[in-house]
Amino acid sequence: MLYVIGLGLSDEKDITVRGLEAVKSCERVYLEAYTSILMVDSSKLSEYYGKQVIVADREMVESESDAILADADKINVAFLVVGDPYGATTHTDLVIRARELDIPVQVIHNASIMNAIGACGLQLYNFGQTISIVFFTDTWRPDSFYDRIKENRALGLHTLCLLDIKVKEQSIENLARGRKIYEPPRYMTVNQAIEQLLEIEDNRGEKAYTGETLAIGCARVGQPHQTLISGTLQQLVDADFGGPLHSLVIVGNKMHELEAEFVKDFAIDKTSFDEIVKRDYSL
Amino acid sequence: MLYVIGLGLSDEKDITVRGLEAVKSCERVYLEAYTSILMVDSSKLSEYYGKQVIVADREMVESESDAILADADKINVAFLVVGDPYGATTHTDLVIRARELDIPVQVIHNASIMNAIGACGLQLYNFGQTISIVFFTDTWRPDSFYDRIKENRALGLHTLCLLDIKVKEQSIENLARGRKIYEPPRYMTVNQAIEQLLEIEDNRGEKAYTGETLAIGCARVGQPHQTLISGTLQQLVDADFGGPLHSLVIVGNKMHELEAEFVKDFAIDKTSFDEIVKRDYSL
Repeated sequence: MLYVIGLGLSDEKDITVRGLEAVKSCERVYLEAYTSILMVDSSKLSEYYGKQVIVADREMVESESDAILADADKINVAFLVVGDPYGATTHTDLVIRARELDIPVQVIHNASIMNAIGACGLQLYNFGQTISIVFFTDTWRPDSFYDRIKENRALGLHTLCLLDIKVKEQSIENLARGRKIYEPPRYMTVNQAIEQLLEIEDNRGEKAYTGETLAIGCARVGQPHQTLISGTLQQLVDADFGGPLHSLVIVGNKMHELEAEFVKDFAIDKTSFDEIVKRDYSL
Repeated sequence: MLYVIGLGLSDEKDITVRGLEAVKSCERVYLEAYTSILMVDSSKLSEYYGKQVIVADREMVESESDAILADADKINVAFLVVGDPYGATTHTDLVIRARELDIPVQVIHNASIMNAIGACGLQLYNFGQTISIVFFTDTWRPDSFYDRIKENRALGLHTLCLLDIKVKEQSIENLARGRKIYEPPRYMTVNQAIEQLLEIEDNRGEKAYTGETLAIGCARVGQPHQTLISGTLQQLVDADFGGPLHSLVIVGNKMHELEAEFVKDFAIDKTSFDEIVKRDYSL
């Protein structure tokens, strides 16, 4: 059996009881470690589960899936995923491959940012499509998500923006020289995301949003030190959200009263929040 | 401390380890039992947690929230919610009320249908707004969600349809006579939802969808006996999905190849699935 097990959002204790029992039954335990990160080391997981945890990077999952699945028709193998198993396409690939090999698969779900974002007080059913914002480089400044935000906002819907994570990056020099030396992980902050969003709006000028649009900056959602701050994009660009992971919600103007009441509680400036809700978000 | 704890999707073992530890620290434990249901009795939960579980119906949560919160500034109180705590508005109310009373609140997240629906193989970021389909009655046949589906489909997005649950209903006679006698719980099936959807399309005729639109009927998502069947609405209207809970996904025509490959695996008729994907879903 291949168990694909969600670990939830914070640390080793966010696994479900069912998930923990499954891990303990497995002969090999892999941890997917490139689409998201837990706030604890894999060694902590190993200790808690009483099992050696093998960290699987993108290369391994994409090119050695048959090694991960070896003998899983006879023994139990666990593939641990931060958040919920169906958060990323790669895990879907692994499940499809297991099916081809006639290996039974059981998925054990958990919270992920896709539902835990409800913690910001906006109702999940009022969210439109989700977007991902990647780090701009000097030569690559992709903005296709601008159209997605515009579509959501035209319908009055909220937009969850997932922010880029760079794990196991090589510098151009190390890559060129074939040295397997990796840069420290990088996590996009709410501040960086907003800077990029405002730059794109400056270029496109289609008013998908403006500096006056309300948003909620979210850090460490579902963890003990979760931070939520609401305000205009312009107000939030300099706010301090602390350590990773960050995400951002752009508020749609169908926001209803109960949502606004909840969100106002952590507004950076309650007076201007009220004014803007009254001006731009009253339906 | 008020702990608001998600129970996940299936039974007593879907709670997280962190959640279980919190429950065990509580003096009073309430179970919210009207927006969704677990597949086990509350007595099973009581036994597993080693705590008496008080079933809280809508009336109690809405009108006796202060009783639920009594002394929670000094002792620990748990409010258990099937799925994730932020799935329903009522829990937001309880959190707002706790804040007003200066009671610290900790939310422990879990999987809910809002993210576990990824199990159907469609990518969560390609879903638009979520809709709820309620039981039609002779005199009340609300169809405002039709516009939401139309908006999603105009953007090529998938639509998650949550299906009605009726718990603790009174018959008109019992209600009139003030008898607190309740009907057995009712759960809308995928079949009933599709019948209602097709009736609305017949009336509105705006082609938000047709009998030929692809959909995925989902039953018991995240549980050991999960059932997924894909096909056209017309094909699925008579399919057998077994016991509750059911939900339905209307596929948006931005479905990409990897999504289609996954979904085809449980198509009611693979040949017609391929034909319709080629005709209506090729981008």
